[in-house]
This record gives sequence, structure tokens and C-alpha cells, in this order.
Amino acid sequence: MHIAILGTGMVGSTLGSKMIALGHKVRMGSRTAGNEKAVAWVNANGANASQGSFADAAAFGELAFNCTSGSGSLAAMEAAGPANLKGKILIDVSNPLDFSKGMPPSLSVCNTDSLGEQIQRALPGTRVVKALNTMACTLMIDAGLLAGGDTSVFMCGNDAGAKETVAGILKKDFGWKDVVDLGDLTAARGQEMILPIWLRLWGTFKTPNFNFKMVR
Amino acid sequence: MHIAILGTGMVGSTLGSKMIALGHKVRMGSRTAGNEKAVAWVNANGANASQGSFADAAAFGELAFNCTSGSGSLAAMEAAGPANLKGKILIDVSNPLDFSKGMPPSLSVCNTDSLGEQIQRALPGTRVVKALNTMACTLMIDAGLLAGGDTSVFMCGNDAGAKETVAGILKKDFGWKDVVDLGDLTAARGQEMILPIWLRLWGTFKTPNFNFKMVR
Repeated sequence: MHIAILGTGMVGSTLGSKMIALGHKVRMGSRTAGNEKAVAWVNANGANASQGSFADAAAFGELAFNCTSGSGSLAAMEAAGPANLKGKILIDVSNPLDFSKGMPPSLSVCNTDSLGEQIQRALPGTRVVKALNTMACTLMIDAGLLAGGDTSVFMCGNDAGAKETVAGILKKDFGWKDVVDLGDLTAARGQEMILPIWLRLWGTFKTPNFNFKMVR
Repeated sequence: MHIAILGTGMVGSTLGSKMIALGHKVRMGSRTAGNEKAVAWVNANGANASQGSFADAAAFGELAFNCTSGSGSLAAMEAAGPANLKGKILIDVSNPLDFSKGMPPSLSVCNTDSLGEQIQRALPGTRVVKALNTMACTLMIDAGLLAGGDTSVFMCGNDAGAKETVAGILKKDFGWKDVVDLGDLTAARGQEMILPIWLRLWGTFKTPNFNFKMVR
């Protein structure tokens, strides 16, 4: 399958390398083709890896991951182009963290709206699924790293078929046993509003290698 | 010990009855003495139970629980009186749920402030500890109801001694094995911002009998 990774940070490179390892062809997109981190990632990941602009990657991928920072996500989606992502699944991993007011970051949008919903409105023809935004990226792609995979990943979106596809990737490719479907994309508010306690827990536990398990 | 329960709803009556069962004397406070629900609770809980105004209860208790609805909490604390609660521990169980804009509720304060911090500012001489706001009240007082007690309760506050006392109640009296101290009261933002996903999970699981377990 052809995969677009939008964003060149640690989340994007981790997800991109995992998709390469699974046998997919992956194109990493950034604001401008030839981005230094994207080129380095391509060099490290072999013939199935390529890079380009956000639009290049979006046009290439049959499925896309939004791994841009929250403050840049909407501009990145605009640059990727609604037409290039039309009809495709976009897995939105981003969080609207606002570092402009100091540490810890606050959220730039929350409560009655979410970044996931803003992205869906910017890409009306795309099937946005919010997932994987509530854990460290090492864990996203390998749930078994913690407690043998016995923790939970949240997911929401407006398209049932898209969520079925994403749940398949989460379970089969990334090892998640407990995929919790929270319903439509308004649940992205709750998924993103976990971040403030997640950041506190990171400080408390002194490691990002932890996760929520929903016990019921 | 003398305990004040501020609020006459399900959370207040559940916590109040538990404190009675543990051998404490409990006074339930509401806006006006003689509140119908408070009187019914007293009648059901025997000689160690009493009721009165918020100020009556606050003056009576050596330790207080804020179990008022979020929209009424600040007015209730003002009515209880900073002088009546001076030097005492207040366990703040409330959530700033705003039902005025329809369902699901949004939060009336979040992100860069919290109800817990607002209450602390309203009661500068009181040692506010935010705890127990992230689960159903049946579970608050009996952690063993779910998974043999193998889930987590969050706590934060500015006074280390107060948190030690509260952790003791949580562990010894309510059966919590994993009390996660998130640090100072600014962590109340994160604890309260869990509510939106908690409400979605309630809808997803079709039961409030669930909880977060922090796996690390």
C-alpha cells in the first residue's frame, strides 16, 4: 500500500519506518521538498521510502497519517490539498499543544471543538480518524512494549468503514488488543483533552513509557 | 472524626454514608438547613448523621468533601465560609460540567485554570486536595468493586501533609491501591479535563462501572 506521512518529527519518522517495515511504500511530506530530516529518514529507510512536499506525499498516499505538530496541522492540511486527500483515510495523530504561553503547554483548541474536527472541516472529502494521540510514539507502533499490549488505544471518526480499516492496522500491524471506538469525531475533544494529564503523568512517572488501560 | 459533606446529591450521600459506616460523625450541608434530601439522608444514616447549612457543616467538620455540582461549587464555598474551613482539608470531588449548552456537557473552566484552583483561591486558608473526580461514586468509596481494586485514582494539591492524609483515606478506607499524586493543584486542570472522555466512555461501555488504570 502507498502511505503518506505528513510531518518529519519523531512521530512521523517512527510511524513511517514501521509502515516501511510492514512492506508498504511510504512518502514523507513536509513544507518544502528536500527537508533535511525527511531526506535523512529516506536515506535510513531504503528503496520504499521517499519524500516531497505535503502535496506530493498526500497525492502519493492511499492512506495518510497527520504527524505534524498541532500548531502547524491546519496549514499542513491546506498545503497537502483537500483534492489530494479526497476519499482517503487520514489518521490524525496530532495534538493541539500550545507552547507559546510557556510550560506546561496548554491546548490551542478544546472543550467545544477539537483539532481533529478542525482538520475534518478543512478536508471535507477526507475520512478523518483520530487515533494514537494519547501515548508515546514508541508505543503507538508496538503496543506490546508495555504490559504485553494490555493497555488501550482510543479512536473516533465519522466514517465506520474508515474506523474498521484503522482498527485493523492498530490491531494487526501495531499489536493493540483493546481499540476503544468512542464514536463520531466530536470525541476528539475528549481524546485531545487527555493531554494535560498525560503530560503531568510523564513528569510523575519520569518516563513516557506508560499508558491508560480502560478497565471495565 | 467529624466530617463535612458539602452537597446533597448522589456523590455526597454516598461519601457521607461511607464515612458514617467507618465510624465518623458526618454533617451534610446544603444551601439551606432542612433540605429535603439532606433530611432523608440523616434519617437513613442514624445518630452519627446530621444536616444543616453549608456553614453549619463546614464549621462542624474537621475535614470536608466538596460534593456540590460544579456550577454551584464556588457559591457553596462562599456560603460555607473561608473562616469555617480555615486550616482544614477540603477534598474536592467536583467537576466543572456545564449543561447549559446542551448534551454532552462542556467544561465551564479548563485548560489554563480549573475549578479546583478556583476553589483554592476562594479558600486561601484551606488545604484543597483534588481527588476522586474521575470515576462513578460507587467506585470512589469501594475501589475493589472493579478488578479487585486494580485501577488508579488521581490526586493533586499544594499541601504535602494534606495529600498524605487524603492518600491514607483513599487507601485504608476506600480500598485504593494505586493513588497517583500528580503534584500541585495546577494538575486539577488535567484531572478535570478527563471528564469529556469519561462521559464518552460511559456511552461506549453502557455502564459507569469502569476506570482508568495507569500502566507503567
